[in-house]
Amino acid sequence: MLTDSDSERLTAPSWSRRHLLDLDDFAASEIELILDTTDAMKEVLSREIPRVPALRGTTVVTLFYEASTRTRASFELAGKVLGADVINVAASASSVEKGEALLDTIRTIQAIGADVCVLRHNVSGAPYIAARESDFRVVNAGDGSHAHPTQALLDAYTLRVHLGDIRGRKIVIVGDIAHSRVARSNVWSLTALGAEVVVCGPPTLLPHGLDRLAPDAEERDFPPVRVEKHLDIAIEDADAVMALRLQKERQANGLLPSLREYSRLYQVNNDRLARAKPEALVLHPGPINEGVEISTEVAHGARSLVEEQVTNGVAVRMAVLYLLMRGEPPA
Amino acid sequence: MLTDSDSERLTAPSWSRRHLLDLDDFAASEIELILDTTDAMKEVLSREIPRVPALRGTTVVTLFYEASTRTRASFELAGKVLGADVINVAASASSVEKGEALLDTIRTIQAIGADVCVLRHNVSGAPYIAARESDFRVVNAGDGSHAHPTQALLDAYTLRVHLGDIRGRKIVIVGDIAHSRVARSNVWSLTALGAEVVVCGPPTLLPHGLDRLAPDAEERDFPPVRVEKHLDIAIEDADAVMALRLQKERQANGLLPSLREYSRLYQVNNDRLARAKPEALVLHPGPINEGVEISTEVAHGARSLVEEQVTNGVAVRMAVLYLLMRGEPPA
Amino acid sequence: MLTDSDSERLTAPSWSRRHLLDLDDFAASEIELILDTTDAMKEVLSREIPRVPALRGTTVVTLFYEASTRTRASFELAGKVLGADVINVAASASSVEKGEALLDTIRTIQAIGADVCVLRHNVSGAPYIAARESDFRVVNAGDGSHAHPTQALLDAYTLRVHLGDIRGRKIVIVGDIAHSRVARSNVWSLTALGAEVVVCGPPTLLPHGLDRLAPDAEERDFPPVRVEKHLDIAIEDADAVMALRLQKERQANGLLPSLREYSRLYQVNNDRLARAKPEALVLHPGPINEGVEISTEVAHGARSLVEEQVTNGVAVRMAVLYLLMRGEPPA
Repeated sequence: MLTDSDSERLTAPSWSRRHLLDLDDFAASEIELILDTTDAMKEVLSREIPRVPALRGTTVVTLFYEASTRTRASFELAGKVLGADVINVAASASSVEKGEALLDTIRTIQAIGADVCVLRHNVSGAPYIAARESDFRVVNAGDGSHAHPTQALLDAYTLRVHLGDIRGRKIVIVGDIAHSRVARSNVWSLTALGAEVVVCGPPTLLPHGLDRLAPDAEERDFPPVRVEKHLDIAIEDADAVMALRLQKERQANGLLPSLREYSRLYQVNNDRLARAKPEALVLHPGPINEGVEISTEVAHGARSLVEEQVTNGVAVRMAVLYLLMRGEPPA
Repeated sequence: MLTDSDSERLTAPSWSRRHLLDLDDFAASEIELILDTTDAMKEVLSREIPRVPALRGTTVVTLFYEASTRTRASFELAGKVLGADVINVAASASSVEKGEALLDTIRTIQAIGADVCVLRHNVSGAPYIAARESDFRVVNAGDGSHAHPTQALLDAYTLRVHLGDIRGRKIVIVGDIAHSRVARSNVWSLTALGAEVVVCGPPTLLPHGLDRLAPDAEERDFPPVRVEKHLDIAIEDADAVMALRLQKERQANGLLPSLREYSRLYQVNNDRLARAKPEALVLHPGPINEGVEISTEVAHGARSLVEEQVTNGVAVRMAVLYLLMRGEPPA
Repeated sequence: MLTDSDSERLTAPSWSRRHLLDLDDFAASEIELILDTTDAMKEVLSREIPRVPALRGTTVVTLFYEASTRTRASFELAGKVLGADVINVAASASSVEKGEALLDTIRTIQAIGADVCVLRHNVSGAPYIAARESDFRVVNAGDGSHAHPTQALLDAYTLRVHLGDIRGRKIVIVGDIAHSRVARSNVWSLTALGAEVVVCGPPTLLPHGLDRLAPDAEERDFPPVRVEKHLDIAIEDADAVMALRLQKERQANGLLPSLREYSRLYQVNNDRLARAKPEALVLHPGPINEGVEISTEVAHGARSLVEEQVTNGVAVRMAVLYLLMRGEPPA
């Protein structure tokens, strides 16, 4: 559907997923298939008329229990570029008032005829319920502190554009690791792709017991990663640093001493970047608290990929919608 | 527009309505025309690419003064499947803040160029004002405790699919009859189609004076129906039972003793269904308070048509939009 | 894109703007180019299928920090008629909650790939920030008390339809001049088009120092206009009277004595209109506080252009979107 050519790949990589819920069980080859498909979608977006009818007739429902300008609009545009119809349901403002529980809303959306439901929910695991209780495809657009797979995929895509192969690269994730679905999904995808991942943050914001994880642990939240409490150490020779958004409400819980203290110890700034590789990249899922997680000069500097991440987000989401609906990459 | 054939029906049934405001003056033939058109729309929805350009160029505005995920999304998809452009206006969250009254908003929506306005409003009769003060077609998507005609039409359609002819069938509507626009519209349509309708509920939730209605009453809210305060009696030999959603705020008004008491006397459960016909069907406009109006096992059992009702809602709304805009059924 | 003809204008008028932020520096020829393009868009809207693919592939984001049914829906329909995809972002209800500042949201919307951002913001000047910090085209849909250029353009278009040439016509703007972005934009466009503009209102609602403005003032908010505190005097021999919406909260600030007093002195009614030209026209940006700014009989009388203004708003916004994206008027 994306090209005029009749030729098809003789050996198309296989795609067998019905849903995108988490990346914890994704093989490197599956992630790479999404990233390769993202390349094809970037080409579509570069056209003079960046629209294709690949998903014409498809109904995508975005069901957001948390507000998010960027993620919802990114999915909405991804669907529209591919010719799908997109129906937005802001659940916080509508169904919840009338006591419609998640399950009921899921069943309603399915019964209406949705093909894909893009679900953001404040409760970890909600997308699994949606996938289990419906026939449609589910894309997790962020659930509680559990996972945000399309964010991690756009991060991986953006890193791959700049670093080439991610294998063997040292990537530091810094911030509130314990509560971050972005961190969690990135750890899974980046380790699957062969990166050396280091997570870094204040002890109160690191997952309990993370540093006790053995490589062969049976039950674990994370794959084995190195944990480092000092950013100055973690960042040494890093190829990329990903700062996470700090939720200021953590202070109320006593988990965070002060923004000033946090910035002093964990802000990504030029001084700290001097310890990383010379061309080290800086990522952030946005929106940045400028001067807290990242210094203003770094946030707007040449190494910052923040806006490129957002741009790549549309193409990554196109790739995900395409693969889930068509079951194979574009020819 | 729905078929490739040039042939037209020689004797197309007539359709002469500009608006769908209520079903109180609909003849059986008109309701059946909508249900037949719904059959054609179900066929469209079953296609590999379930989209037709039948209403291309048409602007549908959904104007909702009450939040409703399912009804708004159902109309939005119905419009999009037919190729219309759909613009959503959530009046509670926007115009009302700036003091825009209904009438002003109606005139604005007309002046902008809407062809159809799908209106939900908490005040009974609001769609009549919209119809009187504008040139566009009005679809009542629920007004106060007055009417919800597309809900009744999807209920009639769903019953027809399972029962064949509705004529002579015994259908019990149970719950808060007095305040229910769903009950009211269903009573009109089901009696028009020749069903034997029994309404049942606590005395405080039955319309005042309903049981005094004579078959030849000149002025009445309802056509003649049987009123029965005991569900165990009402349900005897029923072909279908339609439970209404209980608004829990009725308790605050003293109209409802307790949910436990209500469930004990009026819940549709397997014990009660044993008194109905063996294949008796169960309907509910949703969302269900599970364990109150309907027992959990019945809600998810084989007799429950709840999700099928939602599915049929899209096709029924396509039929209504089509008939109002085109003035005749599809060839 | 609008006609089947291959012929092109030999001497197409030039259009060189990237944004529509204000009308303060627009030449008459530029405004007339927009109004001529609006004529072409009115023709499109009069077609049996009022849709053209002129902006197919274009992404329009409406970003509204203030609620407005009419303006947002008008832009949304304008985009859709031209084949653009429209994504609505109600910033008040989403991003602001998560602390996304305007600048961050602007960068996100750009990174997502918006071609045009239609921005309404309660802070004067916000669209300038959006234009400076992004690559997309910005349409100011109302910013603080600064400007509302598409409103002024639809007013000018509506006046031109009825008056022919605006040059030399006397147009009175009455109401809260000091706080009105509608007044300000209209003063700029109407004076550019050669009208004799008189602004009129209670002294507390006139801009400070406005009556001291000399025709050659270097720094000024307004071009030279006549200021008149008495509507009975201002309205003499007027060709048109434009009443502004009164924000009732001005009373809380002590700027407005009472609605009764305001109506007595500044209401546009038949008595006052008797002093204007016999066919004098009445405009209002809506929504009207009926009986305050305009008497009910005038608001719904033959001279009132209020609904026509709204209707023309869609065509004007189509013209603006078209010119900004295509860089020249339709052939």
